[in-house]
Amino acid sequence: MPKTKAKKRLTHFDDQGNAVMVDVSDKASTAREAVAAGSVYMEASTLKLIKARKVKKGDVLAVAQLAGITAAKRTPDMIPLCHPIALTSVKVDLALDLQAKAVRITATCKVTGQTGVEMEALTAVSAAALTVYDMCKSADRAMRISDIRLVKKSGGKSGTFTQK
Amino acid sequence: MPKTKAKKRLTHFDDQGNAVMVDVSDKASTAREAVAAGSVYMEASTLKLIKARKVKKGDVLAVAQLAGITAAKRTPDMIPLCHPIALTSVKVDLALDLQAKAVRITATCKVTGQTGVEMEALTAVSAAALTVYDMCKSADRAMRISDIRLVKKSGGKSGTFTQK
Amino acid sequence: MPKTKAKKRLTHFDDQGNAVMVDVSDKASTAREAVAAGSVYMEASTLKLIKARKVKKGDVLAVAQLAGITAAKRTPDMIPLCHPIALTSVKVDLALDLQAKAVRITATCKVTGQTGVEMEALTAVSAAALTVYDMCKSADRAMRISDIRLVKKSGGKSGTFTQK
Amino acid sequence: MPKTKAKKRLTHFDDQGNAVMVDVSDKASTAREAVAAGSVYMEASTLKLIKARKVKKGDVLAVAQLAGITAAKRTPDMIPLCHPIALTSVKVDLALDLQAKAVRITATCKVTGQTGVEMEALTAVSAAALTVYDMCKSADRAMRISDIRLVKKSGGKSGTFTQK
Amino acid sequence: MPKTKAKKRLTHFDDQGNAVMVDVSDKASTAREAVAAGSVYMEASTLKLIKARKVKKGDVLAVAQLAGITAAKRTPDMIPLCHPIALTSVKVDLALDLQAKAVRITATCKVTGQTGVEMEALTAVSAAALTVYDMCKSADRAMRISDIRLVKKSGGKSGTFTQK
Amino acid sequence: MPKTKAKKRLTHFDDQGNAVMVDVSDKASTAREAVAAGSVYMEASTLKLIKARKVKKGDVLAVAQLAGITAAKRTPDMIPLCHPIALTSVKVDLALDLQAKAVRITATCKVTGQTGVEMEALTAVSAAALTVYDMCKSADRAMRISDIRLVKKSGGKSGTFTQK
Repeated sequence: MPKTKAKKRLTHFDDQGNAVMVDVSDKASTAREAVAAGSVYMEASTLKLIKARKVKKGDVLAVAQLAGITAAKRTPDMIPLCHPIALTSVKVDLALDLQAKAVRITATCKVTGQTGVEMEALTAVSAAALTVYDMCKSADRAMRISDIRLVKKSGGKSGTFTQK
Repeated sequence: MPKTKAKKRLTHFDDQGNAVMVDVSDKASTAREAVAAGSVYMEASTLKLIKARKVKKGDVLAVAQLAGITAAKRTPDMIPLCHPIALTSVKVDLALDLQAKAVRITATCKVTGQTGVEMEALTAVSAAALTVYDMCKSADRAMRISDIRLVKKSGGKSGTFTQK
Repeated sequence: MPKTKAKKRLTHFDDQGNAVMVDVSDKASTAREAVAAGSVYMEASTLKLIKARKVKKGDVLAVAQLAGITAAKRTPDMIPLCHPIALTSVKVDLALDLQAKAVRITATCKVTGQTGVEMEALTAVSAAALTVYDMCKSADRAMRISDIRLVKKSGGKSGTFTQK
Repeated sequence: MPKTKAKKRLTHFDDQGNAVMVDVSDKASTAREAVAAGSVYMEASTLKLIKARKVKKGDVLAVAQLAGITAAKRTPDMIPLCHPIALTSVKVDLALDLQAKAVRITATCKVTGQTGVEMEALTAVSAAALTVYDMCKSADRAMRISDIRLVKKSGGKSGTFTQK
Repeated sequence: MPKTKAKKRLTHFDDQGNAVMVDVSDKASTAREAVAAGSVYMEASTLKLIKARKVKKGDVLAVAQLAGITAAKRTPDMIPLCHPIALTSVKVDLALDLQAKAVRITATCKVTGQTGVEMEALTAVSAAALTVYDMCKSADRAMRISDIRLVKKSGGKSGTFTQK
Repeated sequence: MPKTKAKKRLTHFDDQGNAVMVDVSDKASTAREAVAAGSVYMEASTLKLIKARKVKKGDVLAVAQLAGITAAKRTPDMIPLCHPIALTSVKVDLALDLQAKAVRITATCKVTGQTGVEMEALTAVSAAALTVYDMCKSADRAMRISDIRLVKKSGGKSGTFTQK
């Protein structure tokens, strides 16, 4: 992360302390991409239920994946200070991790525009995770959604960011 | 959780494996409540920025709290198989945990209706957490949203559920 | 208004000062009604344009009226702490007041529920007024939307309220 | 306003009188800005309540400000013939005017696009005003929202417009 | 249909000819159900593509089914004079009719309320059909959505209606 | 349609069979247009009711037309894998065809962007048709919405498509 400590500040407030939608009018329109990830931890027996349905026609992961894609488009409705943007690509992947007893979720968003798509990717992961919870909660109310984080970001002025 | 293992199944699929919005037409309309919680983990310096703004007028927690309340109302738009319901109460609390370097989030939802409000409470926590991320991401891109979970649920046929 | 001065407080904050969606869980479900009104003031020539279109097929007032009805349904999306409710009736009336050079707007909303519909009626008037502005702004940018107010409210615990 | 009287017409109707979303396909994409303003008039005691809360943590103005920003993004959902656009900046300011017993609201919107942002700025002011009403209505039902108007507009083919 | 010809009128207009959301305040809250159906006609080769994907993991019908359920919840956003209601059940079924070269769609909606759910069922069918079109349009732009109709309606004052 | 049979595939799935919002990041931003059409078939007496209202002030066709325009803007909310886009023009026309006992609907959408507007035009027609149904259903529950189809498409890489 190239930003130095000295520069750290919360850009969503103006000088009077009012919340603002950050003015990106003068930013260049560039190709931007963000990847976010997260997990839903659950009982082994719940994971088996998800896996069993996949063999048949019903598919928790397919519903959650679609929920993630749809939610990415609605990010500016959910996050008050997010800019409305014209996403050019949204991908959401879900996979079963039997060893860690988790559903692993990854979302990738792209745009050509004046602002990044981190929030869109993070929102997609969150909505997919919530949908996994919703569809399995009759079997397991103790599931946990964790480790929602930005994995990669590229294309803006602040350069490329990556973490695991 | 009073449900026995033998009864576990995914109620969001019918016998042919199609996803369905569960039919709650014959369920009793009762007072229902759900409490969910979650955390946003971050660098100590980011937490200090949030704290510093609170002393002035700008307030990350106040914006995130409002985002949580608003998102609870939009749960059926975000979670494909959730029922639309007339929430009678939504509360979202955020607190700084300096020792754990986290913002702690709790949401409580109520309804008098035929279906529970777990997803509304979990969605409120998720949206508040995403908003904390959005407002602090210029200072700290490595934040993590974790431990989103149902803390308490009461009022439905399945009885009361609690976990920490 | 039967409330005494001593009782005045802002119910949208809890004891810690956090914004809340007021808990109406224990309120009785009663028939409630609210009437709101407002005006759009403009040049006489603009009013003539609206009137002229009415004689033909195009009709500013009909579009604005529909915008008002639609907006009433979306009140909880616009006003952060409003409860989602199942409106049973929305009426929006617009009339030309040539003498005052104004479009007069009235909206009436009804519900059988635990909370009132003042905000729905006021939102309907506001959206209708904004739509009049939108449709006439190519001819007259100096229009003013004024006097949006609650005209009548009945059916809640606080009794009936009326003003002109 | 540089438009001559002879040119005045309602552009939101086609030759047959049907309402249309004006075709802006051939307009140049330019930097556009609009400023709108409005006021909520109330009893002096209500204004004091708002002021008193500001000293503590609860803050009517902060909630209303966020409502204004959020509503600006939803303008095409509220105003039937408005184009969907990718706003690059939204600012909403609220201030107490103790002498005039009013909350003064100003909103500024920007976009780089083929159509103006007057309606977005006016919608932001309206939603902020309605939210002030909502949050204070338990103390004062007789408040009035008035003088919602376009204060400044620049960047389109029709030139710059200003009024007080 | 028990209504006699003499009684026929359009209830969505008041005596002055204004569009209204019909006042259902005095209607009884009863269990209501509606079934709608429709078809998407296409080339035999397109139908084979849909069928082929089903054997693998990708599934046009599953995506369209979810789109139908989601759209049913958003009916009052799409249809201007529809009441907002709290649906208690939505089912959407899609099946391949190889002989007729069509995807057959059926939707069933339920509510306990003061107004029927015909529009919700018809909207679910329409959205599912549009989604089939969207997902297959790269292979076949000449598809046709036809025969969207109410198949059954029960539970209201007007009695039970059925047609094929 | 210049695509050869060999190239036919469903672009809304990736290699693993997951549903995706097609990546249009590398597509050229060009002027695109789509025209869709459809019909609502009904009893002659219902058509007369619509016609009669037009002579007065109430107008089924005007309400349906506005519903079509509004719905076009909400296409990405209705169709899960549709891209959010900034429509530059939406026109919806409705006409009575007394001989065929039908309301004929046509919608034209335009955008300058990286993806086409077929779904927006088809969604506009569908919403207008559903609104005609909604407004006339008290008189005629047996209406049918049929022949919703793409009539013309131009501006994308796949060239111009036309059908009747």
